Amino acid sequence: MPPQYAPSLRSRLAPLLLLLQTGFIIIFAFYVEIERKGKADAFINFYAEFQDVNVIVILGFGFLGTFLVRHGFSGSGFNLLVAAMATQWALILNDIESLYYRGKMRIDLRSLIVAEMRTASALISTGAVLGKANPVHLILIGLLEVSGFILNEKLLQFFLKVRPLESIMMLHIFGSLFGLMLTGVLYRKGSEHPFEKERFDKKSGLFSMLGTAFLWMFWPTFNSVLVDDHTPGRKLGAVCGTYLALAVSAVTAAALSVLSNPQGKLNLVHLQSCILSGGVAVGISVSAVQHPWEAMTIGFAAAVVSTIGFHYLKIHMLLAFQCHDTRAILSSHGLPGLLGWVAHLILQIKDSTNPVIAIRFALFHICALLITIALSVTLGILTGLLVKLKFWRAPQDKKCFDDQAFWEFPRLAERK
Amino acid sequence: MPPQYAPSLRSRLAPLLLLLQTGFIIIFAFYVEIERKGKADAFINFYAEFQDVNVIVILGFGFLGTFLVRHGFSGSGFNLLVAAMATQWALILNDIESLYYRGKMRIDLRSLIVAEMRTASALISTGAVLGKANPVHLILIGLLEVSGFILNEKLLQFFLKVRPLESIMMLHIFGSLFGLMLTGVLYRKGSEHPFEKERFDKKSGLFSMLGTAFLWMFWPTFNSVLVDDHTPGRKLGAVCGTYLALAVSAVTAAALSVLSNPQGKLNLVHLQSCILSGGVAVGISVSAVQHPWEAMTIGFAAAVVSTIGFHYLKIHMLLAFQCHDTRAILSSHGLPGLLGWVAHLILQIKDSTNPVIAIRFALFHICALLITIALSVTLGILTGLLVKLKFWRAPQDKKCFDDQAFWEFPRLAERK
Amino acid sequence: MPPQYAPSLRSRLAPLLLLLQTGFIIIFAFYVEIERKGKADAFINFYAEFQDVNVIVILGFGFLGTFLVRHGFSGSGFNLLVAAMATQWALILNDIESLYYRGKMRIDLRSLIVAEMRTASALISTGAVLGKANPVHLILIGLLEVSGFILNEKLLQFFLKVRPLESIMMLHIFGSLFGLMLTGVLYRKGSEHPFEKERFDKKSGLFSMLGTAFLWMFWPTFNSVLVDDHTPGRKLGAVCGTYLALAVSAVTAAALSVLSNPQGKLNLVHLQSCILSGGVAVGISVSAVQHPWEAMTIGFAAAVVSTIGFHYLKIHMLLAFQCHDTRAILSSHGLPGLLGWVAHLILQIKDSTNPVIAIRFALFHICALLITIALSVTLGILTGLLVKLKFWRAPQDKKCFDDQAFWEFPRLAERK
Repeated sequence: MPPQYAPSLRSRLAPLLLLLQTGFIIIFAFYVEIERKGKADAFINFYAEFQDVNVIVILGFGFLGTFLVRHGFSGSGFNLLVAAMATQWALILNDIESLYYRGKMRIDLRSLIVAEMRTASALISTGAVLGKANPVHLILIGLLEVSGFILNEKLLQFFLKVRPLESIMMLHIFGSLFGLMLTGVLYRKGSEHPFEKERFDKKSGLFSMLGTAFLWMFWPTFNSVLVDDHTPGRKLGAVCGTYLALAVSAVTAAALSVLSNPQGKLNLVHLQSCILSGGVAVGISVSAVQHPWEAMTIGFAAAVVSTIGFHYLKIHMLLAFQCHDTRAILSSHGLPGLLGWVAHLILQIKDSTNPVIAIRFALFHICALLITIALSVTLGILTGLLVKLKFWRAPQDKKCFDDQAFWEFPRLAERK
Repeated sequence: MPPQYAPSLRSRLAPLLLLLQTGFIIIFAFYVEIERKGKADAFINFYAEFQDVNVIVILGFGFLGTFLVRHGFSGSGFNLLVAAMATQWALILNDIESLYYRGKMRIDLRSLIVAEMRTASALISTGAVLGKANPVHLILIGLLEVSGFILNEKLLQFFLKVRPLESIMMLHIFGSLFGLMLTGVLYRKGSEHPFEKERFDKKSGLFSMLGTAFLWMFWPTFNSVLVDDHTPGRKLGAVCGTYLALAVSAVTAAALSVLSNPQGKLNLVHLQSCILSGGVAVGISVSAVQHPWEAMTIGFAAAVVSTIGFHYLKIHMLLAFQCHDTRAILSSHGLPGLLGWVAHLILQIKDSTNPVIAIRFALFHICALLITIALSVTLGILTGLLVKLKFWRAPQDKKCFDDQAFWEFPRLAERK
Repeated sequence: MPPQYAPSLRSRLAPLLLLLQTGFIIIFAFYVEIERKGKADAFINFYAEFQDVNVIVILGFGFLGTFLVRHGFSGSGFNLLVAAMATQWALILNDIESLYYRGKMRIDLRSLIVAEMRTASALISTGAVLGKANPVHLILIGLLEVSGFILNEKLLQFFLKVRPLESIMMLHIFGSLFGLMLTGVLYRKGSEHPFEKERFDKKSGLFSMLGTAFLWMFWPTFNSVLVDDHTPGRKLGAVCGTYLALAVSAVTAAALSVLSNPQGKLNLVHLQSCILSGGVAVGISVSAVQHPWEAMTIGFAAAVVSTIGFHYLKIHMLLAFQCHDTRAILSSHGLPGLLGWVAHLILQIKDSTNPVIAIRFALFHICALLITIALSVTLGILTGLLVKLKFWRAPQDKKCFDDQAFWEFPRLAERK
């Protein structure tokens, strides 16, 4: 039997990228301009935080995906590719209403940051199919997810008057549900047994540790960058709260990881997907967290939920619902996100003096979650069906989790 | 003979972490609140520098410890764990006096930065026992070291009116002496011969190069962040001075490393532990350095002292004093720290017009050093004795410098 | 035949480094002082951007050079060494006129940033001889290149009144031509066949991906840091333009890389050297780019030029002109730089209302390019001749691309 090669993407990926990119340039040429009225101050104050978010999106998510032993080039390279496309698309969709009113959209540093945060939601989704999708799939998923997420934001803002900060923080819930549905639709038979190449080793584990460390360090920026600084201390509160929640969830995740292993050993991938849970949960509840201890308690609970989810839910999702979730996005983003939503509800009700306002808030809050869930699930399934088409040339099962399907390697035989 | 496993930490590490973490949350709940009166300006100006310090503590020290070929997960992972615990503890101890006066402690960005810098002193200490201690040890050492270091600061400030900037910069001297005493007490027989796994290879050397590069790049922030910017140019002087000292010590360390090798080759680990010496020395003398050339001369001298210390002292400490110093903290932090202390003394005396003031300064300066040495040595020995208890289940000699003692690895046999 | 060792650099590298470093310290002692009149504001606003540039120079260029499978220590370590030397030298040369007028040169954060940017031009040049030169060569090349580049800037400013921002952005053209000439003069027979060790593998590719990611993320800072922020929106325009150009060139480079491979696979090194081309091209034309779409179009064209250059020119340069260009600096910096120069010309002419001014600008612009080319080519050849002297002990052909020539490795046999 001749060796089986992965199908060539030459006639799929190249035209898709060139077509989309040319289209984006044309849209920018006609409809997008730089906001020239901002104050120099606003630029300078924002710039360092913009770079932190940039590092989270490109380096953090990119190297988080390098833990698979033979999938490092794809993990980091395709992440950059998807991010470069999705951010452009999110910039276009960001201000699309003002196209209607003024005929032009304006971009500034804030819209770049928002676009990158929306891209992050797409990068969470692609984590579920990491190693099983080709770059054409990833580009399609990225663009559709970002479109869906922005639609969700606009719906929440229009119908429920949810503030931008809160609607954008839904990204963890939206991204993880979208990704789960997607990977469910794309299920490959035989996935209940671990793939031969779906594992980490000493060095690939360290590369993903690097990505995790950057996410962990700059997460306070991710949660605080959109918090307005008119009320003194609010932004500081968001930073300190996130920092402390991350510290607590790192410690708690380590403790539970040791507890759950019969020999009392830690698991690196387990740890990496749980130490950020505190940051995720505080992100969603950031506008209701007033005191450091609240953030720390949320961080503790998030780590518990995330660790237990990783241990029991991941395998259940696989066996019962045929969801093969490579990067465990359900336990690293989905569950902590839901927990943060609950924490937000509890804190807001606790702090309201008027029961009518509290009930009204609870109703709106529940509706916001339901809309987000409904939209993410529906769009995830639809995207999955689109991506499943044979036309896109998915890699064979044997070529999953393997860079060799998409990347040229120096032929060793020839040179050695 | 059956294979010997490292003792399980399940019944030690998990309860310790959960207990401490719950305790910290309770303390924060009752006594800690966010400082809400700060100006938004102060936040924005500080934030980028806070992130630099964060990168130094988490990424810099974390990946500096990945040079050991089979100890990368522990080097970076336990560093994060210790940092997460020690920073919380340092935040609690930071403002403990105001608990007495007002019943509440307040935290802001500055206190977070200070807490991270104190954590750095603990991370220096743990460098001496890197690879020979289990995470329970490291947590205990981290918390005790931070407590001792803060006690030292308060003593210096109370008795000698040492300014906060100068007392905190003692961290290099305190941390390295504490670590040395510790590793002396914890000496394992047979350590005079290098351990089988105590070496670096091509890839682990590059990972620690990454950590070193981040330390090198962001060290100017570490030295300048607490310098007040009321006097124009002082902060700029600290940044330029540190940058130049680092550049000089990198060049000098490379020259001496080549000179000291019979074949004229460089040694990567040697270089990594010496190129930061200029930054360390300038850090301690930063309030007395006025001109760039002074910083550069200090950087030159620090690199000389550090390189010679690495070459001759490290082996002497091992053979004569039974101090096995894995990460060479004596030559990378201790000696440059002492040199910086001397440089501070000389510069201050040179700049004083009045001999009485000069003598008074010298007396205070010497007392500060003596107190720091006495406290760090005593507490290092006491901590060593505590940590030596069998109860904490130290890894066997054979399991030293090996991730396999603490981390679960994918069973290769099963999947290949 | 006994094994052939690489010639020892003990008697060359160490004296050279110590001599130069002592000389630099003496020059700083007599002629350099800190600028103490700057406003604290200017410092704070600049500091985060200074750190971004620092990361580009030390980490970005350093880890970009780690793609060679056995050359990682040299790639990152010698980069740091050259940067540390060249930055000091560039600081001295920066303000050398005021030495004449005032007897003292002053340094501030801006001059540090400018010095690091000039160092970047030297690091581009050394990319062409990566793996084939010893550290003595690299130091000499670094210092001579920086001197030449500063001479070029001063000539452009003096004769053609080119503004500092534009003369410094010539660094891509100057650096790459200088490097090409150099590697042409230093041609080794037999280089037309690939060297045994001149290849990347899974892990070394990821390390250089890391460097590339940092360059990609912080390039907007590199292009915008010297843009003055008096006109609102100019700096924002530079940042957004660079960001978008980088995104477009990443997407386009990926598309063309897939197209140019018969099996439709991506090539990592190819991609790494082309995804930055948009940033390079926009950098040179930054003062003429007004709209995001212009930057995006430049990014698109730059990626096309760079990809085609990598594919066809690299091998032609080698076979026809005997230029062996290890890191493909011609296609990653040279061609995009020239394209940016052309784009600048076109945009400026398009925007001028007066044809006289347009022609005058074009003349000046062409002269600036001719001077830069003439100077870089001449100095590159002269430097090449100097470096070719046997006195500097170049590594043998067999020791090229191998860390073992310059770095001590733990003797494995002894310990295992």
